[in-house]
Amino acid sequence: MSLDRRKFLKYLGMAGAAAGTSLLVSEGMKTKEKGVGPTVAEAQTAPQKHSADVKPGELDSYYGFWSGGHSGEVRILGLPSMRDLKRISVFNMDVGTGYGITNESKAMLKGKFCGDTHHVHGSYNNGVYDGKYLFVNDKLNNRVARIRCDYMEVDKILDVPNIQGMHGLFTQRAPKTEWLVCNSEFQIPVPNSNPSQPPAQYNGAHTIIDAEKMEVVCQVLMDENMDLAATDYGGRYSMTTSYNIEKGVTVSEMLGSDYDYMLVFHWDRIKKALKDGKHTMIGGVKVLDGRAGKSDLTIRIKVPKNPHGINVSPDGKYAVCSGKVAPTCTVVAIDKLEDVFNGKIKPEDCIVAQPFIGLGPLHTTFDGRGNAITSVFIDSTNVKWNVQKAIDNEKLPEEKKKNTHIVDVLDVNYQVGHIMATMAETKEADGKWLVSLNKFSKDRFLNVGPLKNECEQLIDITGDKLKLVHDSATYIEPHDCIIVRRDIIEKVVKDRFNMFEHPQAVTKSGVDRKGKKVTVKLTANAPVFGLQEVQLKKGDEVTVIVTNHDEISDLGHGFALSNYNINFVVAPFQTKSVTFTADKPGVYWAYCTNFCHALHLEMRMRFIVT
Amino acid sequence: MSLDRRKFLKYLGMAGAAAGTSLLVSEGMKTKEKGVGPTVAEAQTAPQKHSADVKPGELDSYYGFWSGGHSGEVRILGLPSMRDLKRISVFNMDVGTGYGITNESKAMLKGKFCGDTHHVHGSYNNGVYDGKYLFVNDKLNNRVARIRCDYMEVDKILDVPNIQGMHGLFTQRAPKTEWLVCNSEFQIPVPNSNPSQPPAQYNGAHTIIDAEKMEVVCQVLMDENMDLAATDYGGRYSMTTSYNIEKGVTVSEMLGSDYDYMLVFHWDRIKKALKDGKHTMIGGVKVLDGRAGKSDLTIRIKVPKNPHGINVSPDGKYAVCSGKVAPTCTVVAIDKLEDVFNGKIKPEDCIVAQPFIGLGPLHTTFDGRGNAITSVFIDSTNVKWNVQKAIDNEKLPEEKKKNTHIVDVLDVNYQVGHIMATMAETKEADGKWLVSLNKFSKDRFLNVGPLKNECEQLIDITGDKLKLVHDSATYIEPHDCIIVRRDIIEKVVKDRFNMFEHPQAVTKSGVDRKGKKVTVKLTANAPVFGLQEVQLKKGDEVTVIVTNHDEISDLGHGFALSNYNINFVVAPFQTKSVTFTADKPGVYWAYCTNFCHALHLEMRMRFIVT
Repeated sequence: MSLDRRKFLKYLGMAGAAAGTSLLVSEGMKTKEKGVGPTVAEAQTAPQKHSADVKPGELDSYYGFWSGGHSGEVRILGLPSMRDLKRISVFNMDVGTGYGITNESKAMLKGKFCGDTHHVHGSYNNGVYDGKYLFVNDKLNNRVARIRCDYMEVDKILDVPNIQGMHGLFTQRAPKTEWLVCNSEFQIPVPNSNPSQPPAQYNGAHTIIDAEKMEVVCQVLMDENMDLAATDYGGRYSMTTSYNIEKGVTVSEMLGSDYDYMLVFHWDRIKKALKDGKHTMIGGVKVLDGRAGKSDLTIRIKVPKNPHGINVSPDGKYAVCSGKVAPTCTVVAIDKLEDVFNGKIKPEDCIVAQPFIGLGPLHTTFDGRGNAITSVFIDSTNVKWNVQKAIDNEKLPEEKKKNTHIVDVLDVNYQVGHIMATMAETKEADGKWLVSLNKFSKDRFLNVGPLKNECEQLIDITGDKLKLVHDSATYIEPHDCIIVRRDIIEKVVKDRFNMFEHPQAVTKSGVDRKGKKVTVKLTANAPVFGLQEVQLKKGDEVTVIVTNHDEISDLGHGFALSNYNINFVVAPFQTKSVTFTADKPGVYWAYCTNFCHALHLEMRMRFIVT
Repeated sequence: MSLDRRKFLKYLGMAGAAAGTSLLVSEGMKTKEKGVGPTVAEAQTAPQKHSADVKPGELDSYYGFWSGGHSGEVRILGLPSMRDLKRISVFNMDVGTGYGITNESKAMLKGKFCGDTHHVHGSYNNGVYDGKYLFVNDKLNNRVARIRCDYMEVDKILDVPNIQGMHGLFTQRAPKTEWLVCNSEFQIPVPNSNPSQPPAQYNGAHTIIDAEKMEVVCQVLMDENMDLAATDYGGRYSMTTSYNIEKGVTVSEMLGSDYDYMLVFHWDRIKKALKDGKHTMIGGVKVLDGRAGKSDLTIRIKVPKNPHGINVSPDGKYAVCSGKVAPTCTVVAIDKLEDVFNGKIKPEDCIVAQPFIGLGPLHTTFDGRGNAITSVFIDSTNVKWNVQKAIDNEKLPEEKKKNTHIVDVLDVNYQVGHIMATMAETKEADGKWLVSLNKFSKDRFLNVGPLKNECEQLIDITGDKLKLVHDSATYIEPHDCIIVRRDIIEKVVKDRFNMFEHPQAVTKSGVDRKGKKVTVKLTANAPVFGLQEVQLKKGDEVTVIVTNHDEISDLGHGFALSNYNINFVVAPFQTKSVTFTADKPGVYWAYCTNFCHALHLEMRMRFIVT
C-alpha cells in the first residue's frame, strides 16, 4: 500500500469524524486492504511481459503523448492498453478544468481558444527524451505551447509572427534541447501588410525557438510550402519536406511540378549569420534569408512531387522523406549533407535509396533493428521495409530491382496518417509496439452518427510480421504521437503543485474590498470552502482566488458559481483565479464540482449580490 | 463489404484521377478487400459471446451514454470494450467540432459555455428506450439539453428559471416519454430578487418539462434540497430523494436532522391542478405549491439522514433510496404510494425493507434477476444484495436479523459514485455487465500529474460473484451513465444529415455583399472548397456558411481560418456557419482541418482582406 493510499484512508476516516456523523462507529469502518493494483515500486520491478492485455491493477509500459488535431488538446495514452489517461488542455477552452476560463489560462490564450495541434515532441538529452517538456504547435493560430512534464500542464504559449499554417515541429536532439523548429506550410506576404501582393512573392519561414525562454530566435525566409520537420542526432541541422515550388494557390497549381524539395538548415551557419547581423527585423523578430541563391544557410534536395513526412532513423544515419503523391520514400544520408553545404557534392548525391512503398506514403517510423515502417494513405497499409536492403537494391540495374526491401504489408482501417513506434524518435527505439493513426473508422465501431470517431490501431512489431492486436476508437483528431518508455516520465511526474509557484496562493480565506474591486480568497479543504458566504454589490468587479489545501494525491476540488458560467478545478496545492462582474442580484451558490468526499454535495457557499 | 465501404474505395480512386496524379496506374491501386471487420448485418446475426475482449473488427454489444460531469459533455462508450466512441458537445465549447463557436451552437449556448452534466436518460416507450432522444441536465447553469440519437448531436437546450443546483433528471417511462423531470438541489429565494431573504424562506422546485417541445410544463415549489430523481414504470409518479429539511446553509446545519425525505409527485394531481389554474406565474413559468401542508400534490416518506440515489427496480415494484450518511438502503413499495396519497396508510408504511449495505451507499442498480447492486462510497465497494431477501429479513425480530441479503461485496478502486448495469433502468434489465464509476484512480494508472484521471471499472455480473474484468482511466468526470442494447440504438443512427434541415444549406458557392455585410457560401467537396479566394474589405461583417457535399459516410471536412480563431467540422451533408469581423488586413488562408483525402493538405483557399 502506497503512502498516499494510507493517507487517503486516514483522510476518509477523519472526514467522517469532522462531519459529526456516526460513520466511525459502524462495523464497516474497519480499515481493510482493498484490492489495489501493484504499487509503483512493485510494478517497476516486475518483468514486463509483451502483451497488450493490461489487466485491472496493472500499469502500462509506455506513456503516449498525442496531438489532438483540431480539438486543440494533447492527450496522454497508456500503451499497450491504449487507454486515454489524460486530456491536457492546450489551445482549447476546456470547461472540465476551467482552462481558458480562469485568469491564468486567459492570459496564455489571449482570446484565441481554438487550435489545431499537429506535432508533439519532447525535450531531449543526447538523443533520448529527458522528461522535462513537451512542445506542440497550433496550425490554426500559429502558436507553440510548452507542457511541463512534472505537472502535465501547459506553462507557456508563444505566438509566432509572419507565418500561417504552422506545420512540422521538432526539437533539438543533441547535445540537449536548446532550440526547436517549426515550419509554415502556407505562403503569405511577409510582412502580411500588402494583401494585393502577387502569390509569386509570397513567402514562408522556418522558425527557430529558444526552448527554455520560449522566444523566437529567428526565422529563415523561404520560397516553399514547408511541411513536416525533423532534426538530426548531431545537433547540426533541421530538415523539412516542402512542396509547391510552383508557388501556386490552388490544388492544381500546387501539383504542377514533378519534384519538390527536402530542405536542410545549417544551424552553425544560422548562428553565425545572426552574430554577423545578417538579419532584418520583421514583425518583431529576426529574419534571415534562406531562399535559393540568397544565402548559404540552406540546401535543397530534389525529391518526387509533394513529399510529406520526414523522419530520421534512430542510428542517426538517414532522413526518410515519404512520397505522398509519389509511391516511394527517399532515403537521404545525413553524413553527406555537410559535403553538399560545402559544394563538394551535388544535393542529389545524398540520396542513397528511393524504394517503392505504395500509394500515398505519408510517414515513416523505425523499429531500431534496421527496419522502417511507412504509413500508406490510399492503400490503407503499414509497410515494413528494410532500409539497408533498399539501399543495396538501389545499386542494382533497373531491370533487376524487385521489392525485396519490403518485409511485410499490413492492412489498416482506414486511411492512415501518422504512425509511430515505441521510442522511435530516439536513439533507444525498441521495436515493441507501433500505433497506426487512421483518419477514418467507418464500420469499425458501433455507428455514432454522421460525425464518426477515428481509429487508432496497436500493432505488435516484435516479429517479422506486423501483427494487429487492438483497435481504439478516438475523438478527432489523433494527429501524431510519440511513445515514451515509462521510466523516463514516471520519475518526473508530481502528485501536487508547489503551492507558492502561484504568487496569489491563498493561505487564509477572506474578502478584500477596494471600491468596486472585490477579491475573494478561498481555501478549499474537503468538504468546505474557507468561507460560507460572500456579500457583494451589483456591479462589483469580483476576483475569486481558490487554493486547494488538500495534500492528498488525486484530491481535486472544483469551483463553480451557479448561473455565472464559472467552472474550474484545482488539483492538490494548485491555485486558480477568475474575475467577473456581479451583474445579477440575488443569491448564487458556488459549489465543488470535483467529487472530493462523502459530503462533497454539501461543499458549497453563497455569493449574495445586493 | 458494406455499400459505404465500396463507395469509399471508389471515391479514393476517383480522387486520384481528379487530382491528375499518376496514382491510378500504379500496381498498388488494385482494389483489394481490406481486413475489415464484420458488417453490421453480420455482426447482428452472430451469437453474442460474453467476454470483455472485443477484438479488432468486432463490434460492441451495448452503447453506453455517459454524462461528462464538469467537462459539460456527454460521451458514448462501447461496452464491453469500454472504448470511448464519441464526445458529444453539450454545454461545453468544443473546438474539435466548433461547437460553441458556430452561429448554430452560439444560439443554443447563449454565451454560457460551461456546464456540469450529471444525469443522462433516454426517451422511453413502455418502459424501454425508444432510441429517439437523450436528455441531460446542467447543474451549473441550470439547463436541460436534448440529444437526437439519429445524429448524436444536441438539437435543443432549455434554460430553466427559478432554480439552482439542478440535480436529478429522469424521463417518463410509460406509456412513453412526454414529460421529464429535474430537481433543484440548492434552495434560493423564489423569485431570486430579494437576496436578503432569510434562508428559512428559500425554496427549491421540481421542474416538469415537455420532452417534445422542450418547454417547462410547470414547477412544483418545495422546501427540501432535492437530489436524485426517478419515475415509476406506470407513468404516474416522479420521485426524488431530498435532504436538508433543516434548511441549513452550511455543512453542519444540513446534517442536523436524523432523517430526511423521499418525495413523491403525483402527476395526475399536478395535471388537474394546472387545469384548475392553481398555479402562479414566476419567472415566466407556472409554479404549483408542493410544500408540506400546502397541497395534495406530494407526499414525504421519512428516510435516514441525507439520502442520495433513488432507483426503481426493473419489475416496477420498488424504489430504492441509498443512504449516503446512513449505512442502509430504504426499499419503498411503489404499489402502496396511492394509498398514502389517499390517506389510507401512513407514508412510512410504504417502506418494506431497510437493509444494511455499508459505509456511504450512493446509488443502486439491478440485474433483472431480483438482485440490487449498490455503490458504497466510503467503503469503496459494490454490494450485491437480494431485494426479496432484504424484505423477508425485515420481518424477522431485530436479534435474528443477519446480513443474509448480501450476496457479494467487490472492492472497487476507489470511492465509487454512480454505478449502472446493462439496461438496468428499463423493464429489460439483462444482468450482463455493471460499470462502477469511481471518483479517484490514484495509483491505478500511470501517474499523469496532480490532476489525475478517474477510474471506470467493468464488472461481469452474470454469476453470483461480482467479477472485475477491466479498468478504464477516464477524463473528469464520468458522472453517471445508462447502458443500452445495441439493437435499440443502431437502427436509428444515421450516416449523414438531411441537408435541407438547415435553412441556409449551400448548394452553389458564391459571395453576396450588402454594404459591409458579406455572406460567403461554400460547398466542401474533397479536396476543394467551392471558392479559391474571397475578397474582403477591412471592417466587413462576414458570415461564412459551409455545407459538406461529400455523401460518403465518415467523410467530414473542417473549416479553419488562420489567425481568426475559427474552427469547425461539417459531417456529410451538414451545414454550419460563423460570423466574424474582418478586422485584420492581409492574406489569410482557410483550410480543411479534418483529414479527408490524399490531397487534404492542399484543400484550402484565401481570404484577402484589403
